[in-house]
Amino acid sequence: MKKIPPVKYMRDFYPELMRQRLEIESAWRAVSERAGFEPWDAPIVEHLDLFTRKSGEEIVTQLYTLTDRGDRELAIRPEMTPSLARLITQRQSALPRPIKWYCSARMCRYERGQRGRLREFWQWNIDLLGVADVTADAEVMSVALDGLEEFGLGPADVALRLNSRDLLAALLGALGIPEEHHAAVYAVTDKRGKVPDETLTKLYEELGLDKATLEKLLAVMSCSTLEELDRAARGAGLVGFEAEVEKLQRLIGYLEALGKGDYVVFDIGIVRGLAYYTGPVFEIFDRNAELRAICGGGRYDRLMETMGGQPMPAVGFGMGDVVLGELLTEKGLWGTAPANVVAQAVPLADERIADAMRLVASLRAGGMMADYVMKSGGLGKVLKRAGESGVRWVIFVGGDEWDSGQVRVKELATGEERLVGTDGKELLALIAKTAL
Amino acid sequence: MKKIPPVKYMRDFYPELMRQRLEIESAWRAVSERAGFEPWDAPIVEHLDLFTRKSGEEIVTQLYTLTDRGDRELAIRPEMTPSLARLITQRQSALPRPIKWYCSARMCRYERGQRGRLREFWQWNIDLLGVADVTADAEVMSVALDGLEEFGLGPADVALRLNSRDLLAALLGALGIPEEHHAAVYAVTDKRGKVPDETLTKLYEELGLDKATLEKLLAVMSCSTLEELDRAARGAGLVGFEAEVEKLQRLIGYLEALGKGDYVVFDIGIVRGLAYYTGPVFEIFDRNAELRAICGGGRYDRLMETMGGQPMPAVGFGMGDVVLGELLTEKGLWGTAPANVVAQAVPLADERIADAMRLVASLRAGGMMADYVMKSGGLGKVLKRAGESGVRWVIFVGGDEWDSGQVRVKELATGEERLVGTDGKELLALIAKTAL
Repeated sequence: MKKIPPVKYMRDFYPELMRQRLEIESAWRAVSERAGFEPWDAPIVEHLDLFTRKSGEEIVTQLYTLTDRGDRELAIRPEMTPSLARLITQRQSALPRPIKWYCSARMCRYERGQRGRLREFWQWNIDLLGVADVTADAEVMSVALDGLEEFGLGPADVALRLNSRDLLAALLGALGIPEEHHAAVYAVTDKRGKVPDETLTKLYEELGLDKATLEKLLAVMSCSTLEELDRAARGAGLVGFEAEVEKLQRLIGYLEALGKGDYVVFDIGIVRGLAYYTGPVFEIFDRNAELRAICGGGRYDRLMETMGGQPMPAVGFGMGDVVLGELLTEKGLWGTAPANVVAQAVPLADERIADAMRLVASLRAGGMMADYVMKSGGLGKVLKRAGESGVRWVIFVGGDEWDSGQVRVKELATGEERLVGTDGKELLALIAKTAL
Repeated sequence: MKKIPPVKYMRDFYPELMRQRLEIESAWRAVSERAGFEPWDAPIVEHLDLFTRKSGEEIVTQLYTLTDRGDRELAIRPEMTPSLARLITQRQSALPRPIKWYCSARMCRYERGQRGRLREFWQWNIDLLGVADVTADAEVMSVALDGLEEFGLGPADVALRLNSRDLLAALLGALGIPEEHHAAVYAVTDKRGKVPDETLTKLYEELGLDKATLEKLLAVMSCSTLEELDRAARGAGLVGFEAEVEKLQRLIGYLEALGKGDYVVFDIGIVRGLAYYTGPVFEIFDRNAELRAICGGGRYDRLMETMGGQPMPAVGFGMGDVVLGELLTEKGLWGTAPANVVAQAVPLADERIADAMRLVASLRAGGMMADYVMKSGGLGKVLKRAGESGVRWVIFVGGDEWDSGQVRVKELATGEERLVGTDGKELLALIAKTAL
């Protein structure tokens, strides 16, 4: 009979790969909890209109949609923010502020499969709601970086590219560009660093601005530090953007206080899509910038209203497991060792199988990873396999020593053998003494 | 704007509920790893025919099916065994035996919502492949019970109801009932304990067996221990079933060796559906038998062939989170306490916010759960909230002591206050000393 293949661009988690996924998820959880974020989750399917309401109809091309037997139009979640908004708005008045939530969530997007982009992936989301000030933005970005430091990544490996949608809006306003044209400018700005500078200039020119405005825009948009931008904007005679520069400077100051100053790079090209974000936005990249963004996020103060809730300031990020995993592989930073069976009982005759089980049950009850070979015989092969799979102690159950009330224990690393009682107590003590 | 509701019969995991789910999943992982099982997972969607091939077309009414943009017919997984078979058969010759795998997996079934039955749930799966003997069955059942003991459940709370499909087949064969009619007998037997005994008798009568056969069948099927069954079958002159009784007895002996003897109840009514299982089968119930089965499993030696692989003996179980969660609530066995923020820094003026952050960053780097209030002011409210949410140490950043290079630390439980240095080191030591 023919075998059935896995779904395209999705991963089968054989134990080795699964241990890596668990390592990532466990780091995300530890870092989130340490910073006082609480875990949450939502169903893997939601009503389709939850996603179209936040992201517009175009998102549907990326969705796995389905109709259930009750004729409900559903979709597998492609992101967590709509569900987050749903949960928050359902209990908005009852939840104490600030709301600090995290999740480590499975999601699906129907995308063209390519490096760093799969159709099923995991995402770490951190969201902080109820705080309008950049203290919250700093906390969220700091936790994202904590999540990378947990794996040994540092400022030499990754950079946090920071910008502000409010700052962009203030600059465009000062340039006299009406709000309905901002999205077009953002769309071009979003290409910064992805296309050659000349192409970018050409794209700005094609926006149909008058020559004087275009010149000023280009002067501002070519800056690569916040200070440079501040000077260029003042030099171009722009006003009304200064408060936004100060806000970003204060945010950077807070990131320094949180020990994350060395990661921060101002990048006016970070725009994060066209709608949704309202304030500071950021992406984290590897310094070689060979991979897609590891993490992206920012402030989204208007979402709760869109979802039928009360106004509520909010800031958050999403970090995917695929790009992070590639980076960890590249840098050799996986900490994953298979969780080895510490002790393996080997029955020397079939009538000793139950005795081997008895011994193993007492080892497990003592918190030890223990296992037994399920039949007697083939001792050479059993020992070979035990050695290969990292077993540290082999316990021979049976033989002459059994008749005298003992079992023989062999420490595979040293070859040393000892006799201990058959009830596991002496063995537990022995292993505890020499294991560390 | 209108709020969008959650999908029917699926759960929103607000932090409190999420901590319970994480407690369950973490117990499952710990128990599995301790017994030497390795973690695995598969995509949440699979090709539809993977499920219909194992379970027949009728499963489709329970499936969330979808067609992706590449016109593939997919389904959200309702169980893990088909995916398990897919992964195993893909690498069957390369995987060292025995294969001991576990997963803790999210799945969806479109079912009528009712107590203990939701449309999205989590399931712990343990599978042991490559061992034909009942040593493997014993190991798998023992791990299922370990999983319940991990929560403090014991033989007074739950029972493992055990039967054997091979034993049933041997008995029916000895009764002269041809194999093609076995399924009909199983279907009636499956109703044992769910309908009154008279109804059950009537159902057996309706099978169209001759009077003598029916009488023997009823004599056998009314037994409530393995010994009783053995006697009744011998008394009815049946032969050829004895090896199966012995096999079950040996299995029970192994369960006793593994310390699980007190859980075991022989129950000829445990049939586990109509196809798929080939040997010993079991279900775990609460002793009050008010809830649905907590866990069910058994031997399925023919699945790998059905899925295009080589023959391979296999045994496993699935345990859902919903019924288990109800039982834990009923018995008051949740261990979950919110993971409290241990230390919270409170800036006494806005210009001390960055200093509070600096302090918190060093506490987190020391592995402590630490947090800071994101603005100054409202001290009464801040202390009230800290007390309510279980914060143990409040650190006041600012004021006179700041000018002399110190911060004031208050232990909320005792009200005791102390002055320590501003860099967090002294504080970490203080908390470590008094925390446990």
